[in-house]
Amino acid sequence: MPLVTIQPEGIRIQAPYGSNLLATLKEAGVNIESVCGGRGVCKKCVVEVVSNGLNEPTSMEKEVRSLSKSFRLACQARIIGDVTIRIPQSSRQTRGKILEWGRVKDFEPHPATRSLKARIPKPSLTDQRSDAERLLQTLNAKTIDSLLLKKLPGKLRELEWDLEAILHEDEILDVRPSGRDFYGVAVDIGTTTVVAYLVNLKTGRIASVKSDYNGQIAYGDDVISRITFALKGSQNLKELQSRVVATINRLIQEAADEAECSPSEIYELSFSGNTVMTSLLYGVDVSAIATAPYVPPFRSSLVFKAREIGLTANDSAVCHTFPLISGYVGGDVVADILVSGMHEQDEKSMLIDLGTNGEVVLKAGDLMLASSTAAGPAIEGAGLSNGMRGMDGAIESVSIDVETLNVYYKTIGDTDPRGICGSGVVDAVAWMLIAGVLDQKGRIADLNNPRIVNTDGEKAFVLAVNKEGRRICITQKDVRSFQLAKAAIFTACMLLLRIAGVSLNQVSKVYVAGAFGNYIDPRSAMIVGMMPELPLSRIIQIGNGSGQGAVMSLLSRRIREEAETVAKKVKAIDLNTVREFQNEFIDATQFPHRRTDMFPRVMKAISMRTPLLD
Amino acid sequence: MPLVTIQPEGIRIQAPYGSNLLATLKEAGVNIESVCGGRGVCKKCVVEVVSNGLNEPTSMEKEVRSLSKSFRLACQARIIGDVTIRIPQSSRQTRGKILEWGRVKDFEPHPATRSLKARIPKPSLTDQRSDAERLLQTLNAKTIDSLLLKKLPGKLRELEWDLEAILHEDEILDVRPSGRDFYGVAVDIGTTTVVAYLVNLKTGRIASVKSDYNGQIAYGDDVISRITFALKGSQNLKELQSRVVATINRLIQEAADEAECSPSEIYELSFSGNTVMTSLLYGVDVSAIATAPYVPPFRSSLVFKAREIGLTANDSAVCHTFPLISGYVGGDVVADILVSGMHEQDEKSMLIDLGTNGEVVLKAGDLMLASSTAAGPAIEGAGLSNGMRGMDGAIESVSIDVETLNVYYKTIGDTDPRGICGSGVVDAVAWMLIAGVLDQKGRIADLNNPRIVNTDGEKAFVLAVNKEGRRICITQKDVRSFQLAKAAIFTACMLLLRIAGVSLNQVSKVYVAGAFGNYIDPRSAMIVGMMPELPLSRIIQIGNGSGQGAVMSLLSRRIREEAETVAKKVKAIDLNTVREFQNEFIDATQFPHRRTDMFPRVMKAISMRTPLLD
Repeated sequence: MPLVTIQPEGIRIQAPYGSNLLATLKEAGVNIESVCGGRGVCKKCVVEVVSNGLNEPTSMEKEVRSLSKSFRLACQARIIGDVTIRIPQSSRQTRGKILEWGRVKDFEPHPATRSLKARIPKPSLTDQRSDAERLLQTLNAKTIDSLLLKKLPGKLRELEWDLEAILHEDEILDVRPSGRDFYGVAVDIGTTTVVAYLVNLKTGRIASVKSDYNGQIAYGDDVISRITFALKGSQNLKELQSRVVATINRLIQEAADEAECSPSEIYELSFSGNTVMTSLLYGVDVSAIATAPYVPPFRSSLVFKAREIGLTANDSAVCHTFPLISGYVGGDVVADILVSGMHEQDEKSMLIDLGTNGEVVLKAGDLMLASSTAAGPAIEGAGLSNGMRGMDGAIESVSIDVETLNVYYKTIGDTDPRGICGSGVVDAVAWMLIAGVLDQKGRIADLNNPRIVNTDGEKAFVLAVNKEGRRICITQKDVRSFQLAKAAIFTACMLLLRIAGVSLNQVSKVYVAGAFGNYIDPRSAMIVGMMPELPLSRIIQIGNGSGQGAVMSLLSRRIREEAETVAKKVKAIDLNTVREFQNEFIDATQFPHRRTDMFPRVMKAISMRTPLLD
Repeated sequence: MPLVTIQPEGIRIQAPYGSNLLATLKEAGVNIESVCGGRGVCKKCVVEVVSNGLNEPTSMEKEVRSLSKSFRLACQARIIGDVTIRIPQSSRQTRGKILEWGRVKDFEPHPATRSLKARIPKPSLTDQRSDAERLLQTLNAKTIDSLLLKKLPGKLRELEWDLEAILHEDEILDVRPSGRDFYGVAVDIGTTTVVAYLVNLKTGRIASVKSDYNGQIAYGDDVISRITFALKGSQNLKELQSRVVATINRLIQEAADEAECSPSEIYELSFSGNTVMTSLLYGVDVSAIATAPYVPPFRSSLVFKAREIGLTANDSAVCHTFPLISGYVGGDVVADILVSGMHEQDEKSMLIDLGTNGEVVLKAGDLMLASSTAAGPAIEGAGLSNGMRGMDGAIESVSIDVETLNVYYKTIGDTDPRGICGSGVVDAVAWMLIAGVLDQKGRIADLNNPRIVNTDGEKAFVLAVNKEGRRICITQKDVRSFQLAKAAIFTACMLLLRIAGVSLNQVSKVYVAGAFGNYIDPRSAMIVGMMPELPLSRIIQIGNGSGQGAVMSLLSRRIREEAETVAKKVKAIDLNTVREFQNEFIDATQFPHRRTDMFPRVMKAISMRTPLLD
C-alpha cells in the first residue's frame, strides 16, 4: 500500500491504492476543512504536494484558476503511490480548536487553587491551640475563609482531623474528605456571548464548555448602550449585574451537570472581559468610562468571593478578573495577548480580536498599542436577520458556486440550518463578493436568480431553506451592518500601524482571536476587507483568546502576574482622538476598500471569481 | 478664708470658715463618695487628715470605732482653719470612672481609622490612570473597600476631586466632603450586659455611652447555656448571633442619636468579649469550646466588615475583635490586662474581672496565668429577685444602720429605686453581714425587724420600698446565688496563687474590673469574701476594662499589637482540672470563708459591726 506522509505533522498513513485523499486524511483524524462534501466546489480542502504520488488533476481542479501547479484539492485527488503533502493553515478545520492552547508548549500549570492532604493534630491538654491555629500551622497557610472558619470546629471533628484542604494562595477555602476532584470555572464575558469553561483543577483538564448570549443583551447590543442604560437609573446597574450573573450561573450549572459534578466543588472563578463587562460583573459604576477622557474605574485584577455577587459555586470560592488596560481596552485583550505570546516575541506583530468590540493590538519593539472599536454584534451573528450564536444549527462555513449561485454550507452539529453565526457571515459575504452577488459598495446585485429575493421590502440573498421551509438570508441591511463592523476593525489596524510608524510588510504575525461559534476563515476576512491583505501564513488563529486566557489564569499564578505586567505595559489609543479616523473609516466600508490597491490579491481573486489561496 | 488642700490631686480651695467639708469638696468637683446624704451613717466619705484645721470629731464619728485618729468623715467635719486632707481610694466615688483611662498618661492615640484630605488629579488625555489608581496613589493607600470601589467614579466626580478620605490601615473606606466628624464604636459584649461607646475619632473623645442586656439572655444566663442552645439546632447559632447584633445595633442607634450623628459616619467597630461571645458575634461554631479540652475555634483578632454580620454602621466599616486566650478566657480579659498595664510592670499583681464569668489573672515575673469561673449573672444584678442592670433607678450603693437596720442607699440617677445592680448587691450583702442580718453560712437571721420579711415562702431582707409600694429585697435564694458566685471568684484567685507559688502578701496590686452599673466597693467585696483580704491601697479599680480596652483599641494600633502579644503570652488554667478546686470552692461559699483566719481584718470589722477602712 502507498505511504502518505502529512506535513507539518509528520503523520504517516498507509492507504489502499486509488483511495480518495480527503477521505484518507479524515479517517486518519487529520484536521482538514471541507464544506461541500467532497464535490470540488467549496475549494477549502487545498493541499500542497511536496512529493507527488497522486492522480492527475481533474477537470474540476483545472477550473480553479488560482490553484498553482503544486496545489490540489484533496477531495479530487486519489492516491496512486507514496506521496508527501503539506496541509496549509488555510485548509485547517478550526472548529474545536477553542480547546487547544496557543501556548500549550511553554505553559506550565501552577494553579492558585490547589489541594493539600493533611492529618491535623488533635487538641489535648498539652496542645491547647485553637482549631484555626492547628489547621493553619499544619498547612502552612495564612488565613481561613470566614465562612469556613464559622463551620470549622464541627467540620474538623466530623472529619476526625484527617482531611484534604482546598487552598487559594495562602487562604484555606475548605476542608473535606481526601481524594475528590475539585473544579474551577473560567468565564469569557463577551458583550454578546458568555462562554464558561469548567476545569478540573486536580487534572488541569477542561471538563465541559458552555456558552450563551449575555443576558444583558435585553438592555442593548453594545457596551455604549449598556453604559447608557446603567447610568439612566439607580437600579439599572444592579439589574445589569444580576443579568450577567444569571447567565453565568446558568452556564455553570449546565457545565457542572454535563461533567457530573456539583457547583459546590467549584473553588475558583476566573473572568476575562472588556472594561465595561468586568465593571458590570462586580457592579462598579461605569460613569468614568462614559465621559472623556474615558478612564476605567479600576485597572488591576479584582479578587473577591463568589458569594459577594451571588455566583453559583462553593460558599468560599474566590473570583479573579483579568486586569484592564483602559476604559475601552479590557481584560479580554490582555488575555488574547497572553494566549498569543506576542508580548514575549521580538518580531513585530498584531492581534485582532473580532467581537462586538473589535480590538486591535500592535507590538513593535518595546511599544505595545491597543485600541478598541465598536464593531457591533454583526460579526458575532447577532443583530442580523438570521444571525445566531455559534451553536448547533448555525451555518458556520459557506462557499458559493459562482456559476449557479448554489450555496454549500456546513452547520455546527451538521444539523438542519437554523441561522448563521459569525464565521458563516464572513464566509457568506466574501463569497457573495466572489460570485458577484455584492458589488464594491455592498449593494446586492439585480441578478436573475431565485436566491436573490425581496423580503420585507429589501433585497436579500438566500443561503438556505431549512426543513421547516424557513429561508436563511443575508439581507441588504445585514450587509450594511457588516460593512460598518468590518470597516471599524480595518481602520483600527491601519491607524495603529500608522501611529507606530510600522508598515504592514513589517508585521510578521497577525493573531486573530474571537469567540465566534467557529473560527473565522482569514481568507474570507481579507476578501471582505475586515483585515489587511497579508500572506495567509502570517495569520495565526488563536480562537477565543479571552476564554483561553481565563482558563490559563485558572491554572497558573504566573499568568496572573504576567497579566498585570502586560496590562500596565500596553498603551491604549482612543481612535476618536485620531483625526484621520472618520475618513479612513468611510473608505473602509467598501469591499474590500475604496483604495483597491491595498488589496491586490483580493482584487485578483474577485476578478477571477475564486477564493484566496495560500 | 481657710485654705483646703486636697491630696493627692493637689487641688486648693478657699472655703468660708465653718463650712462643711463634704459640701466644699463636692462643690469643688472633687470625686468623693457619699450615700446617706451627709448624715454620718454610710461612712463612705472618710478622709485622712494630713494637717489639721477641722473641728473636733463629732460624737457620731467617735461611734465609728474603726476610724483611727487621723481619719474623719467629711460630712461631719467643719473647716475652721487651713487644712490638708488626703482622700483615700476607698472614698472615691467611682461612678463615671468608666470613662477614665487606666493608662491615660502613657496612652498615645494612633488610630487605625483616620482621615486624610486630598485633591485628586483629574483624568486627562495625558493622565489616563483609572479612578482607583489615582485615588490610591494620591493617598498612598493599598486597597479600596469593594463597596466604595463600586460607587467611586460617581463619588469622585460629585466631589469634584476635592475630598477627605477615611482610611482603615491601608484601605480606603470612604471619600466625602472635608471637615466632618467621623466615629468609631467600641463594644464590650458581656454575657449579661453589652456596653457601646461611641467615640469621635477626629477628637479621640467619647461622644456617648449606651448599655443594655445582651439579647441572648433569652437563651440562658451564662456561656454554658448559650453553648448548649447553640449546639441544639442548626438555626440556633444564627439566632444567637442575630440577638446580639440586634442589641448592638440598638445601642449604636441610641448612642448616635444622643451624639447627633448618623450611624453612616461610623467607620470602625472594636469588640471585646469572652471567647463564646466573640464566637457568637461572628457566628462561629462553638462546639470546640463545648468538649474537653475546651479549645477555642480561633485565637487571633478577627477583622471583618460590619456589613458581613449586619451591623449598623457605614457600609464600608471595619470590625476588629480582641484576640482570645483560651476557650474560657477571652478578649475581655486581654482588654482588662491592657487597661491595667499589669503586663508591663515588674511587680507581682492580680486582676479580677467580676462578671457573669469571673476571670482572674495572676502575673508573677514572666508568668501570666488566667482562669475563668462561672460566677453566674448574680453579681451583675441579673438573676436576682430584684436584680437589674446598672441604669437609672438601680440601687448601686448601700449601707445599713447596724442598730436600727435602716438602709441608706443611692440609686443611679438619684431616682426612685426600681431594683438593685451588681455593686449594690455586694454592698447589701456586706452590710447584712456587718449588721448581723446574715450569718457566716449565709442564713438570714430571725431578727424581729420589719425589714426581715417572708415573700413567696422564703425569707428576705427589704432594702427599700419604692413609690409604687414595691419592695426591693435580697431574698435567701439571692444570697445563695451570690455565695456561689463569690466563692467561684475567690477560689480562682487562691488556686492561681498556689499554682504560681506566690503568696498573697507578695501581690502588690490587685486590679478589679467589671462592667457593673457602678464600681463595686472593694471593702464590701472583701467583707463578703469575694476577693482575698488585702490592704485597700493595693486595690485599683479599672472599671469596665473590657469596654475601655475596646475604646483604646479603637484609638491605637499599638494596643492591637500589644493585645496579640498578651493573648499569646497568657497561659489559661482550667480550674476543673485542678484537684483541690471542689473543696476550696465549698469552703469559700461561707462568709467571708470557712477558714476565717484568712480574713482577720474582715472578721474584726464584722465583730465590731463596722465597715472596713483603709
